[in-house]
Order: sequence, then C-alpha cells, then structure tokens
Amino acid sequence: MQRKIYDYADGDEVNLFMVIKDADVRVAKNGNKYIAFTFSDPSGAITAKYWDAHPDEIARFQPGRVVLVTGKRDVYQGKPQIKLRHLRLANTNEPNDPAAFIPAAPCSQEQLEEEINQYVKAITNANWRQIVEFMLRQFHDTFYTYPAAKTNHHAFLGGLAYHTVSILRLARAVGEQYQDVRCDLLYAGAILHDLGKTIELTGPVATQYTVAGNLLGHIVLIDERIVETCAALGIDQYDEDALLLRHMIIAHHGLLEYGSPERPALLEAEILHHLDDLDATIQMVKGALSQTERGQFSSRVFGLDNRRFYRSQQGSNDD
Amino acid sequence: MQRKIYDYADGDEVNLFMVIKDADVRVAKNGNKYIAFTFSDPSGAITAKYWDAHPDEIARFQPGRVVLVTGKRDVYQGKPQIKLRHLRLANTNEPNDPAAFIPAAPCSQEQLEEEINQYVKAITNANWRQIVEFMLRQFHDTFYTYPAAKTNHHAFLGGLAYHTVSILRLARAVGEQYQDVRCDLLYAGAILHDLGKTIELTGPVATQYTVAGNLLGHIVLIDERIVETCAALGIDQYDEDALLLRHMIIAHHGLLEYGSPERPALLEAEILHHLDDLDATIQMVKGALSQTERGQFSSRVFGLDNRRFYRSQQGSNDD
Amino acid sequence: MQRKIYDYADGDEVNLFMVIKDADVRVAKNGNKYIAFTFSDPSGAITAKYWDAHPDEIARFQPGRVVLVTGKRDVYQGKPQIKLRHLRLANTNEPNDPAAFIPAAPCSQEQLEEEINQYVKAITNANWRQIVEFMLRQFHDTFYTYPAAKTNHHAFLGGLAYHTVSILRLARAVGEQYQDVRCDLLYAGAILHDLGKTIELTGPVATQYTVAGNLLGHIVLIDERIVETCAALGIDQYDEDALLLRHMIIAHHGLLEYGSPERPALLEAEILHHLDDLDATIQMVKGALSQTERGQFSSRVFGLDNRRFYRSQQGSNDD
Amino acid sequence: MQRKIYDYADGDEVNLFMVIKDADVRVAKNGNKYIAFTFSDPSGAITAKYWDAHPDEIARFQPGRVVLVTGKRDVYQGKPQIKLRHLRLANTNEPNDPAAFIPAAPCSQEQLEEEINQYVKAITNANWRQIVEFMLRQFHDTFYTYPAAKTNHHAFLGGLAYHTVSILRLARAVGEQYQDVRCDLLYAGAILHDLGKTIELTGPVATQYTVAGNLLGHIVLIDERIVETCAALGIDQYDEDALLLRHMIIAHHGLLEYGSPERPALLEAEILHHLDDLDATIQMVKGALSQTERGQFSSRVFGLDNRRFYRSQQGSNDD
Amino acid sequence: MQRKIYDYADGDEVNLFMVIKDADVRVAKNGNKYIAFTFSDPSGAITAKYWDAHPDEIARFQPGRVVLVTGKRDVYQGKPQIKLRHLRLANTNEPNDPAAFIPAAPCSQEQLEEEINQYVKAITNANWRQIVEFMLRQFHDTFYTYPAAKTNHHAFLGGLAYHTVSILRLARAVGEQYQDVRCDLLYAGAILHDLGKTIELTGPVATQYTVAGNLLGHIVLIDERIVETCAALGIDQYDEDALLLRHMIIAHHGLLEYGSPERPALLEAEILHHLDDLDATIQMVKGALSQTERGQFSSRVFGLDNRRFYRSQQGSNDD
Amino acid sequence: MQRKIYDYADGDEVNLFMVIKDADVRVAKNGNKYIAFTFSDPSGAITAKYWDAHPDEIARFQPGRVVLVTGKRDVYQGKPQIKLRHLRLANTNEPNDPAAFIPAAPCSQEQLEEEINQYVKAITNANWRQIVEFMLRQFHDTFYTYPAAKTNHHAFLGGLAYHTVSILRLARAVGEQYQDVRCDLLYAGAILHDLGKTIELTGPVATQYTVAGNLLGHIVLIDERIVETCAALGIDQYDEDALLLRHMIIAHHGLLEYGSPERPALLEAEILHHLDDLDATIQMVKGALSQTERGQFSSRVFGLDNRRFYRSQQGSNDD
Repeated sequence: MQRKIYDYADGDEVNLFMVIKDADVRVAKNGNKYIAFTFSDPSGAITAKYWDAHPDEIARFQPGRVVLVTGKRDVYQGKPQIKLRHLRLANTNEPNDPAAFIPAAPCSQEQLEEEINQYVKAITNANWRQIVEFMLRQFHDTFYTYPAAKTNHHAFLGGLAYHTVSILRLARAVGEQYQDVRCDLLYAGAILHDLGKTIELTGPVATQYTVAGNLLGHIVLIDERIVETCAALGIDQYDEDALLLRHMIIAHHGLLEYGSPERPALLEAEILHHLDDLDATIQMVKGALSQTERGQFSSRVFGLDNRRFYRSQQGSNDD
Repeated sequence: MQRKIYDYADGDEVNLFMVIKDADVRVAKNGNKYIAFTFSDPSGAITAKYWDAHPDEIARFQPGRVVLVTGKRDVYQGKPQIKLRHLRLANTNEPNDPAAFIPAAPCSQEQLEEEINQYVKAITNANWRQIVEFMLRQFHDTFYTYPAAKTNHHAFLGGLAYHTVSILRLARAVGEQYQDVRCDLLYAGAILHDLGKTIELTGPVATQYTVAGNLLGHIVLIDERIVETCAALGIDQYDEDALLLRHMIIAHHGLLEYGSPERPALLEAEILHHLDDLDATIQMVKGALSQTERGQFSSRVFGLDNRRFYRSQQGSNDD
Repeated sequence: MQRKIYDYADGDEVNLFMVIKDADVRVAKNGNKYIAFTFSDPSGAITAKYWDAHPDEIARFQPGRVVLVTGKRDVYQGKPQIKLRHLRLANTNEPNDPAAFIPAAPCSQEQLEEEINQYVKAITNANWRQIVEFMLRQFHDTFYTYPAAKTNHHAFLGGLAYHTVSILRLARAVGEQYQDVRCDLLYAGAILHDLGKTIELTGPVATQYTVAGNLLGHIVLIDERIVETCAALGIDQYDEDALLLRHMIIAHHGLLEYGSPERPALLEAEILHHLDDLDATIQMVKGALSQTERGQFSSRVFGLDNRRFYRSQQGSNDD
Repeated sequence: MQRKIYDYADGDEVNLFMVIKDADVRVAKNGNKYIAFTFSDPSGAITAKYWDAHPDEIARFQPGRVVLVTGKRDVYQGKPQIKLRHLRLANTNEPNDPAAFIPAAPCSQEQLEEEINQYVKAITNANWRQIVEFMLRQFHDTFYTYPAAKTNHHAFLGGLAYHTVSILRLARAVGEQYQDVRCDLLYAGAILHDLGKTIELTGPVATQYTVAGNLLGHIVLIDERIVETCAALGIDQYDEDALLLRHMIIAHHGLLEYGSPERPALLEAEILHHLDDLDATIQMVKGALSQTERGQFSSRVFGLDNRRFYRSQQGSNDD
Repeated sequence: MQRKIYDYADGDEVNLFMVIKDADVRVAKNGNKYIAFTFSDPSGAITAKYWDAHPDEIARFQPGRVVLVTGKRDVYQGKPQIKLRHLRLANTNEPNDPAAFIPAAPCSQEQLEEEINQYVKAITNANWRQIVEFMLRQFHDTFYTYPAAKTNHHAFLGGLAYHTVSILRLARAVGEQYQDVRCDLLYAGAILHDLGKTIELTGPVATQYTVAGNLLGHIVLIDERIVETCAALGIDQYDEDALLLRHMIIAHHGLLEYGSPERPALLEAEILHHLDDLDATIQMVKGALSQTERGQFSSRVFGLDNRRFYRSQQGSNDD
Repeated sequence: MQRKIYDYADGDEVNLFMVIKDADVRVAKNGNKYIAFTFSDPSGAITAKYWDAHPDEIARFQPGRVVLVTGKRDVYQGKPQIKLRHLRLANTNEPNDPAAFIPAAPCSQEQLEEEINQYVKAITNANWRQIVEFMLRQFHDTFYTYPAAKTNHHAFLGGLAYHTVSILRLARAVGEQYQDVRCDLLYAGAILHDLGKTIELTGPVATQYTVAGNLLGHIVLIDERIVETCAALGIDQYDEDALLLRHMIIAHHGLLEYGSPERPALLEAEILHHLDDLDATIQMVKGALSQTERGQFSSRVFGLDNRRFYRSQQGSNDD
C-alpha cells in the first residue's frame, strides 16, 4: 500500500496518488490563472496551488479525478500544504478509484451496519421498525458511504452512518436514564434523521449539493420518502405513528432558523435535536483540537460561531 | 332571512341564531366559572360572557354548535359585545347548520372556481397543469370552503380560495409587467401554496389546528401530497418540473424563521412570497381600518408587529 | 402519615397541612385585597385564592409557614386548585416543619451522596479531586437540600444534587463514547457548576433570590469560592488546573446572553454546557407532559420559548 | 456607432471607448500600486486591472473620465474582464461625453415622462397633484437621468424614473384589485418616494454619495423639499393632506432598521413599501440570473441576504 | 394652598382637587363599566377606580379636567391609590386650571431660561446661534412648558427644558475634558434635539401624541422647521453648517431601530446621543428608586428593558 | 533623541529604531513566505512587508524586539507604510528597551497617579477606600503601564490609567449634577473596573491575551482579587459594601452579550457603564478622525459597528 500524505514530514519530497476534492480556478496578481487544489487521501486533506494553469489543464483536473502528485510537503501557519512540482492524471493501470482516496469512518461499514441493526431490532413499535427496515434496505448503499455533511463535520466516507451510530449510543444512555422516553421512537428518528443527505448531496467523493438538495433540503426530501414508504407498507400517513416519526425528522434542527419547518413538540424530538447537536459539536471541537498544539488555542471553528478552543497542556489521563 | 348581529344597533335587544366560534371557560374573581364566548353569523363575530356557568352548560355550549342568543347589543371601547340574558341550543327544526352562520368570502364559490379555472388553463407547462388539476379535483370540497388562517387573515368561509384568487390576480399583473417571469409556474405555485391548510386546520367552523398540522405544518403536509400526485401522474419527483413546483410551495414563507425550510431560490418563488405577504397584509390592514373611525388610529394589529393604522379623515375618491 | 393533596380527587373535601410557597397580595375588582396562594406538600404545588384578606391575615400567612387548609379540591382549565373554606397556621403541637411539606428528589439524600462520591473518586487529577472534596464538605448541608432553580426545573428539595447526578450520568456515557474527553475535568465541573445556587438562593422552602444572588449571580459567587479553596489547599489560582476548572463553571451557560462571562473554550466545557441544558430541558418537558392528557398538547412551557409539547396517544413500551 | 464591450466574444481583441466607473488604487504583492478599474459602456460594466500604476496615471484616470481601452476580452470564474494592454484618455475630438457610456433604462426618457404624466393626471386630490407637478418640474432634469441606487438595483441612466414607473404600474394593479385603496395617494407617494436620491447621490456617472446624502439620507432630504413645496403652494404643512403624503415617503423603507423614522401607518404607505421592495427585488434577481447559465445557481446577491438563485433548465414559454 | 395628595398618609380621608391625567374605560367582571383613573397634582400621580360608571359620567370625566376627589388614601403592593367615595368636576369658582395640577420641573421656568440662554451665548458659530435663537423665540411658550416624553422620563411641566439643561451641563463637562469637540455644535444640537416634541405631543396636560407626531415623529417634524429657519435667515440648507446641525438632531437616537434615519457620523452627534441616553436613564432609575424601600429592589422599569434596580441599605454620604 | 516615524514625510528615506508590535507570517502568491510587520515608536504604529522571509528571519524578528528599520516612508490609500530595504535587531549598545518605543498616554505617570489619588481620597466609605488603596498598591506597577485594550482604544503605555482618569473626571461631573448618586461608590468602581486587564493581557509591549484572560476574562479575574482583598482587610465578602463594589465591576459592560454576567442593578453601576462606553467611544472616534482629511469621511471603525465618521471642513473654534 502506498505511503499517505500525512506519513510524510514537513520538507519531504512527495510522490503519491491522491484524489482531487476541490479545484478552484482563480486569477493571480500577474493576471494568469491558477488552480487552488484540495487533494485528499485516506489520511486527510491538503491544499496546493497550481500556477499558470492552461485552459486544458483546468478542464482536465476536475474534482473527483485521481492524480499523481509530485512536489514537497510544506507548512504554512501550522497548516500543511504541498508545493507542487508536477501533476498528472492517474493512468488506467494505476490506482484509479476515487473512493479509495478519501478519509473513512474509524470503523468498518460492517461494524456500523451490525451496530445499527441492533438498534433497529430494539424498535418495538412494529410500524416504526418496518419503516426503518424498508428504508435502510432502499438506501443501503448510499447510507453507508455518504458523509454526514459537505465540510463541517463527519465529512468522510461512511460519515453519515458513523454520525448516526454516535447518536444512537447517546440515545441509549439517555433512554436508560430518563423514564417515559420512548426509546424506539428515538432510535427510529435517529436512524432516519439525516438520511435525506443521500439525496441532498452528490456522494462521498468531491461532495457537492444536488439541485434537489439546494431547492428542497434534506429534511423535506426524506419526509416525502417516509410517506412513500408508509404507502408501500400500508400505513396511513396521518396515523399517529406516521405523524410522530415524520415530526422527529422535520424538527431535528431544533430551530426554524436552522431549517426545521416546525420546532420539536415531542420529548423524543427535543432529545434527538440535542444529541444531534452534541455529536456534531464534539466532532468539530475534536477536529479543531487535533490540529492544535498543547497549550495553544485552535484556529476559529466556522461551524461553532468562530470560537477558538484551548488544548490544555496535559491530556486526558489515559494519554 | 333572519336579521344579522351587525344589523342591530348599539343598545338594541337581540334575539337571533348564531354559531359558537369559541367557548373559553374561565374563573371569575368570585371563584365561579364563566364562559367567554365568541359567536358569529355571516355579518361577523362578536363576544359575550356567560356568568356562573354550570358544568352541564359548559359541556353543552361547545364550539361549532348553533345557539339562540337573547340579550342586548352593547359596545365596550369601540368593540361590540352582547350582554346575554338567555342562551340555548337550536332545536332540530330551527336553523341548525353551523356553516350557515360563519362569514363568507365576498364572492360565491362558483365565481372563485370559475376564475381559478381560468388561471389553471393558462398553465402552459403540461406537468404543472396536470398536477394542479389533479389536486384541485382531489381537494375540491375543502379548498373552496376552508379559511386561509385560524384568525389573522381571510378567516372566513372560502377564505382560502379567495386569498388564492387575490394572489393570482396580482401574479398576472406582475407577469405582464416583467419579462422572463414564468407565469405558469407562478400560477401553479399560487394555487397550491396554501392548499396544505386543508390538512392543517379542522375546517371553516370553529377552526382549530389538527395534530398533523401542529406536528408537521401545512408546508410539509402539502409537499408530500404533490409528490403523491406526481407518482399518480407518472412524473418523476426529481424531474426539474417537480422540483421547481415543490420549491415554490416550501419557500413561500420567505424566511426560515417563518417556517419555510428553504428560502426562495427562484425568481417566481420570490415573487410568490411577496404577493402572498402583500395580500395577507392588505387584508389585515383593511380589517383593522374597517373597525376604526375616520381620523383615528386602529387598535394594534397582532399579525403586523402590533402596529396601529390611521384611517384618514377623507376616504378614497369613490367613497 | 397524612393524605397528600394529589391523593384527593377533583371535588373532594380537603383538610390537610401544607406549606405556603407563595403568597401574592392582589386587589380584587371590588377593591378589596385577596391573597393568591401557592401551597405545597410532598406531592406537589397547588393554588388557591383567599378573598377579602385583612391586614393581619396578610401579615400572618407568610411564605414558609405551615397551615391547615380546609376546602374543596377543584379543577380549572386542567389545572388543579383549592376552593378555600378555612385557613389557619399550624399549632406548635401539629406538623410544623416547612421542609416536610415540599416535594423532594425521587431518591434519598443518602443515595445522591453515595453516587456523587463515586464520581468524586473517579477524579484522577489530584488538584481537582481535592478542590471538589473540600467544597462538598464545606457546602454539604446546602448542596444536598437546595433546589436547582426557583421555579423552572428541579425546584424541589434536593433538586440541586439530583440535577448534578443526572448530568454526571450523562457525562459518563459521553466520556465512554468519545476519546480524548477528560472525564475527571467533566466530573469536577459538573459537581461544582451550580453549587453557587446555594449562595444565590435562600433555601428549599419558599425559595427567593438573595441580594448577593441578584447582584452577582451564582457563577461569579462560586468562582470566588473555588479560588478561596485553591488558596486553602495551596494551589495557585493561575495554575492551569485551577484555570481549567474555573472555566468549566463560568462557561457552563454556553452563551454570553445566558450569563456566562465567557463562552466554552474547552471540549469539556462545551460538553458540560450541552448536558446541563439537556437535563434541564428533559426535566421541563417531562414536567409539562405529566400535567397533560394523552393525545393533547401541554400548556406553554415558559423556560422553553413558550413551546407546547404533545403527549402521544400511546406511551412508552413499558407503560 | 462603435461596437460595445458585450458585443465582443471571450478572447477577442478590444479597442473601444468606455467611461471609468470606479478606479480603486491598491497595492500588489510586489509592493507596487495598481488600479482596479470598472469601465462601462451602454452594454454594461466590466473590470480590468492596470498594473504598476504611476502617481500621474492614478491622478489622470479618475472616475467619470472617458478612456480608450485596448486589450483582450477575458473571462474569469464566469465573470468577464479585460486584460489591458493600453489605456489613454479620450481626446477632445473623440467620443467624450461620459453620459453616453453608461447603461440606460430600457425605454426612452420621453416614454418614461409620458407614462408618469398619465399617473400624475390620475391624482384626483388637488393638493397632492399640485405638489407632485411642482416637484417634477423642479427636479425634472435629475429625476429622469439619475439611477435609483449606487449599485444594487436600477443603477443605470434613468433608473430612478424607470423604477418609479414600475412601481406605478404595480400600484395601478393593486388599486384596481382592492377597494378602499386611495390610488391618488399611492401614485403621489410612489412618484416622490425616491426623489431624494437626486440630492443623496452625485449623478448617473461614477455615482457617489454626497455629504448631504451621507449625513441626512434621501428620506429626510426630500421630506424637507415637500414641505418647502407646500409653502410655495400655500398648503399648511400640518394639514392632513400634507401629513399623509409626507408619511408615504418617510415610511417607505418599511422598517426602522432600514432607515424609515416611522413604520407605515397607512394602508397606502404599507402598500408602497411592499411594491418598492418587490420591484427592487425582481430587478436584482433578474440581474443575477442574466449572468447565470441555465441549470446553474447564480453567484450570491448581496442585496438579498447573499442568496443564490437558480436559473431553470427551461425558460418561460415565450423564450 | 391646598394639601397635596402625597402629603396624605396611607389610610387618611382625602378631599382635594386634582386633574384627570388618564381615564380608561373598562368592563368589570359583572359586565358593568368602570373608569380606571390616573389623577395628578403637583406632588405626583395616583390611580383610582370608579365603579359602575354611567355613560354621562364617562363623557364628563375626560382627561384634562379638574375634579374634586373624595375618598381614602390606600396602598396596594407598595403603590398608592385612592378608594373613591365621590367625584365631581370643579366649579368655575374653584381651582380650575389643569396646568396647576401637574408636577413641574425642580426649578422655575425663569431659571431654566436663564441657564439655557447662557449656553446659547456660548455658541460661537454665528449660523448655529442665529438658528437656535430664532427657534427658541418661535417655540418659546411650548419649549418651556412641555414634558420631554409622554410617560417614561421627564414627564412633567417643563420637563423638556429641564432635560435639555441637564444635557447641556453634561455637554459642558465633556467639552472641557476632550479636545477637538466643537462645543457650540454640541450645545446647538442639544437645545434643538427634542424640540420636535412640542409638535409631536399635545401639551403638558393629559399628554397624547398628535396625528402629526404619530405619522412623522419629532425628529422629522423639527428637521423641517430647522430648514424653514435657515430659509428665514438666508442660510443655504445644503451649507455644511446647516447639514451638520440637522445631522445632530436626526441622529440623536443613535440607532436606526430607535427611529434615527441615520446613525451618528459626527463626534458631536455621537456624544449628544450618549448624553441624551445617560440623562434619560438616570432620570428613570432615580424615579424607580424613589418609590423603593432601602434594601429592596424596585419594580421593573419598562424603559430600561424591564430591569429592577437595588436601593442600597445606606444612602449617599450627604443623606 | 532620535527622529520619530511620524516626523518623516511621505517619500523620505527612513533609518530608525522601532519595536516590533506584530509579525504575521504569510505566504505570497509566488509561494514564498513574507512577514507582515507592524512597527511602533512613541509617535505611533506603521506597517511594512518583509518579502521572501527565511525561517531564521522569522524566528529572529519576534514581537517585542527592537529593530533598526531602513527603507522609505510610503503612503497607500491614505495609510502610511514603510517600504523596507533593510532590517536588523538592535545591538546591546543601541536603544534596546521595547517600552521606550511604544506610544504613551498624553500625561505622565506621575500626573495620572496624583490625580487618581485625589479621587481615592474622596472615597468617604472606609471599606471601599481601603479596598481601592490596597489594590492600587498591589497592582501599582501594572496599573500605570498597561494599555486599556489590545487594539481598540487606549492601546498605549499607561492607557489603562489614562482611561480610568477620564472616567473619573466624567464621574465627578455627573456626581455634581445629580443628587443621590453615591460618588464614592462611583469612584471606587471606576478605579477598579478594568484593573483585571493587568491579568488578562500580557503587558504594554506586543500586547496579547494570557491564557487566564482567554479562559476567564478580566471581569471574573479581578472580582476574585477584590474578594481576596476583602479577606486581607477583614471585610466580609457578603457584606453589602463588598457586594455593591463587586457588582460595579461585574456589571460594567452593561449587557450580558458584552460579557457582564449581570446587568447593572445600581444607579452607580448604570452610570459607570455609560461613562466607560462614552470615553471609549470618544477615543475611538477621535482616533479615526485624526487620520482623516477635513471634508472627508474616515475609514470604517471596527469597534463602532463599522461606522464612518465625518471630519467637518471647519474645526472647533480654538483650532
């Protein structure tokens, strides 16, 4: 297996295959165009600038293509970058599958699937379990490969399922601690809450928003599919079971200004919103701290009101 | 035909049938319960208090029931009320249909229907026209009888269709004035934009929110039905025609904080939002001014940030 | 043991000892004064009106006094109340301890203490453990009896410790799930986060704000005591251990507009804020739903943006 | 007539006269100064960079001057620009009138004037008609040449009058549709609402804010002139006719935070605000879409909360 | 001279002339109307309820009328009130001038006038001094008698001039302390800043908003009069002197949402806004504290975000 | 004494010692690193770019170091800069004390100290005077040298004491003007209000935030020290004197969103907040205007909502 970009040290000569995640064409001060690349391999993403780009190079180096990157690993203000010396598309007999070059969830798809299936089994209400099972079959391939977001959090292969599992674990803890919480509603809602991302986004490689995603958003997109599933299973869309489950999904952003057409009106919907927020937040803070030296503040985290987080001088006890 | 409540002058003895629109049970300072009624007949709504209400009276005088009201027409701070002397349910051989006692749109259902059908014919895109025709057939009875809102504006029999016609007329004027506006998209969106109210609300008499309305809201509720209609007509829900039309409806509140899960991203969606807002606003201001003396300010209008509006000393030229 | 107010059914004659929680003197429409009481016993709180109150009665029936309440249990708009027939102070040979008449946490002080002590033992950092132990000793009596708030949530005997335990349990689940979280910092912060309430509030009976509470708030009040404790233990207040722990407490409201002078800048501070919010929210929603019929919406919850919550027709599986 | 900049294709050599709309002096990374130009001719505006600018060139190439532009038409991120090869001021015997090089309203000044005069005739209230006639005479030259704004919308020669006509047309449609609207007040208000722009801005070429505009704003500036006109015509400034008309103008921004010192308190003022907003919005969306490919989203529109708008794959039926 | 209402102790029989400040007709729970009065005499305002009011009594007891009040001085929740036994209009041979019964500024009109004239003399810029002198002559009678607001602050006879003097004193201190502040601009702006209140309000007795005040507001109303004054004095309204002075007035509310059409853009305008705010705030806090016992918190102050203020146990050193 | 940077004219060759205030390493478009310097000497701060910076140069030219700067004084968009030709660290026998190269308050430390001591003597309450005296002794060295902020206002040597004196002078004027203001509380609060800056910031040279400052903020940091002082002096921290003084400091930001954990609840705390705001605002506006030509608007002031301020054509009378 090839060496990964984050196996190289600062100053090393690099020569490796990566996938183009973003390729932003800009104009330099001298009037010539250049491409601001983001490359990625399973160890993470890194930027590089390609100066004096010719139109055919701009046309050739599109997001999603695998390329052979030659140059030097450099560091600028604590952020790694590559000083490019040469760049070309991978040949057909070389590593060529874009999906092989994007970061992945810290556990395998099989593990995620097995764990999620255990929560599905714990859904005692038959309607909800059937709906969840039906939709997990229908969306199986995308659900286990898509990221949970374009950039902010869980933006990796399998990120959507991994984010879902994280919420389910928290949900179990909450369910055990507080009486009167309907765990099965919480589990069913958690599993479906972001499934619409598989329609809103283009996929795990060089992720973009689809037109449907931009015009309708993942909340509305998946709500419709739940109702479709109800029809397929013979469940009335206005039956309380259907209404409660749909509400779990449409209310999970918590506030209208975050895109939920209604605010949570069920204890379980309120909890799902909190846990979704908590997991995404922890993921963002951890991401920021992982690029921060001990005793320093991180750079500003866009998704958290541009706050900076402090990495303490000493770590957790088991460090 | 019986005399209407607003045919009576202040101080008149009244004796007429009305429907109970609201019946709010409260406790008086002496510890006894009373009912704060809102009655209505086609000329409008009026309040009255029923003192020392017995439990069986509370049970009997439910919203939606027709009653014979005996008492005196009174005025308090410019607002009319009835001082009740006697109240009883209407008998079976007396006027008894609640719908006969609620205010109605200023034109007949036939007129509304005929005018709306002309706009439907002007929808040149076949997909949109089919969807609109299908849904107008499906929701025919409720669309032409429901109010457009519980209280704020167009809260009368046929208010929903009347509000829709008003927007369509404005839409035609806008379409004629500005090039590049797709009139048929605007018409189709206008006709469907509030159709979800027929699922969100209980009906024209003693209007309340349904559980589905409270948990999902009329935007999400009707979006699902549009997709269902697409399926019935063989139109792919992710075809651009379907996406554009769905976007028209889900974005029509304009702002996320007003419950639209996405903000308008089409010229026509932006226009529909403006026209919807304009028509509702005019209706609210006119309603407030109609209860205001010339040269005075109205009472505060809840739906318009509690503003007061001035009724000028002289009216429009054709007054 | 005497029968409790919520053991009585609607319409029952009541005759029992309760404590006065609130006694608000108002003027009736007839110009006479009356007292709007809130009484409580361990089963909960209930309101009652005392008409035509004489000055000496107003002076006598102060919050915190135990009284013998005679009258009828009544219901008004779903909310229970008492129609008073007679009221007098308890005699010295009658039940007389106010603390015996306020609701209490669902587990005993011993249980709370034992569970909290286990978390204290799990604080591996010696500085934090010493500080926590020192302060738990110092505030022992108030920490285990005070409520967590005046009205909104956990407003019962032992509510502060119970709220603390709830957060600690959630904290353990989060700590187990996410690497890099310093559990001992999270535990130490959770235990101390609301300890300032014991200085901000007057106590568990007829809870009011102290002048110090109104002028400085519980965050500032306890921060000072932590530094005092550091001094007593020989820990430098500007040592990182002290700074991190103090930050946990001062940032736990999450937002400046909620009274935190700084926003969370540590992963653990961010988590503590989320868990504090989650536990308080669940407690408020559960409180609202416990007074709501199945298939109905609750009354508006002040502490949650006046939202109403739906109690579904069917309960959790173990109901 | 000379070829216009938007008659040239991408890559064409260009050699034509244009006016300097903006000339922003900046420092390049090499420490030398350059000028970021915006040129315009009647077909629109285009940017260009002038490298290594000498102080005398900076002094010479001022906004408002006509220049001969030689270079190549280029495209960068969908936005056209010119790669300059040479630049010089136009000679006295060359095209030299700056006003000839700015975009103009899509209809002639005569057409605008004729149409506006028809609305003036429809003002039946003698006071309002006299005021409007007086002020249109007084501001005749600027009213028909000024833009309606510096950049956001209707930023072209005659834009102010064109924007006014658009609102008047919408106003007529609204007036026909809703009873009780005083059309003449609406027309008078519409004609005067932005007239203060002629004092707030410097003119159609290289438009800037005047000191009076910056310190007082167009609303206050024109209000004063209305009162002055009343005095000239012998109308009491506190007569209701004067008050109503002044209110139309000062309230037309709708919200205090948009610079209206009072919110609309007349039905007609509310309508004027809506129509003003609607026309400006349509103009901005159309402007953004005109630079967008079919099936794509526009770039972000600053004046509309940075939203992006979608240009559908198919156009309006009459395309 | 007659005894004043605040010379009476709680429980005293009262029999004195007062003016009706407000007379709000309401409906009692028994269905009869009553009048909620606010009376005032020079010592302050006090409320009273008049039960079972007949229509002719409602017509007779209008705001602004002097009445003979007979009853008992009472206290309710710390707020004084009168329990009425009898009420009648003052006869022609009895004290009858409403202005004699409203609270007045703590210094005489002569003192205010003399002090203001000293500041006028300190205006070295001839244009500003002339404008100020002209307008003080023109508005002399109203400027020295009007209140500065309807209720919030300085709501007493001469309150406007008193508020103006207070700001002028602060302005002098600021001017002495900071170089580069143009004191004469600050003085001129301070004197004119609220002069529009004399057009916006009806007068010192039973103060209401005029129609002009409601439709245009005091800022716009006085701006117009300044320009009129410029014309009378031959000063060009677009001369910098005129623009700066007008800006002082229109920007003095500081924020657009407080009704200033522009935010301060001059050092002196910024200072005027701060001093206006500071003086009004101090006046409101002092008013609230004057009705508060030592060691207690005041009731909520509406004009200060409903904050409560603490009156310390010990007063200032010179108490 | 050496010539200062603002003694040089635009275009002059410069050769002088300055201190490095900021040294921001960036990457140029050619991929090489450069340092964006801010230098300062007592006459003010100025920027310069150091191209193609080698790693050892980056390591050498750290904030706080004194350097010999050789190059040319230049101007860019009205802002002065230096075009560097050479740069080296000062030798040990050359001017070398960083503190000698930063701007200082316009009066000497002795003057500030003397003036502040006079206000201390005017604190009649013995507790407050003792606390203030104790803390001024304890923080003597830092209080008289630190700036009042990192950049916004009073960012110079002695700025903190100078800002404090400015507020004290305003406080005296307010105290003289309004009865019932406790001057000694106001003085004591003013002296201590920003003392926490000496713990929050690193010092007058190359000012940064400390970790304690970032995690706790100057309000919390100094509150703790006040309590510590109380203990040293034998004053109970819950005594009203202590509570009032602590409240003065913690509430002085006025709003929770500005970092005050409580809003002002004392007349004196409200006044202190206003005066603090007023002095900082005047300082910022004056700073902006000092870099603005007459008849022009300043650049946008970040600390004042990005407003621009106008410098009038004529100055104050004593100019």
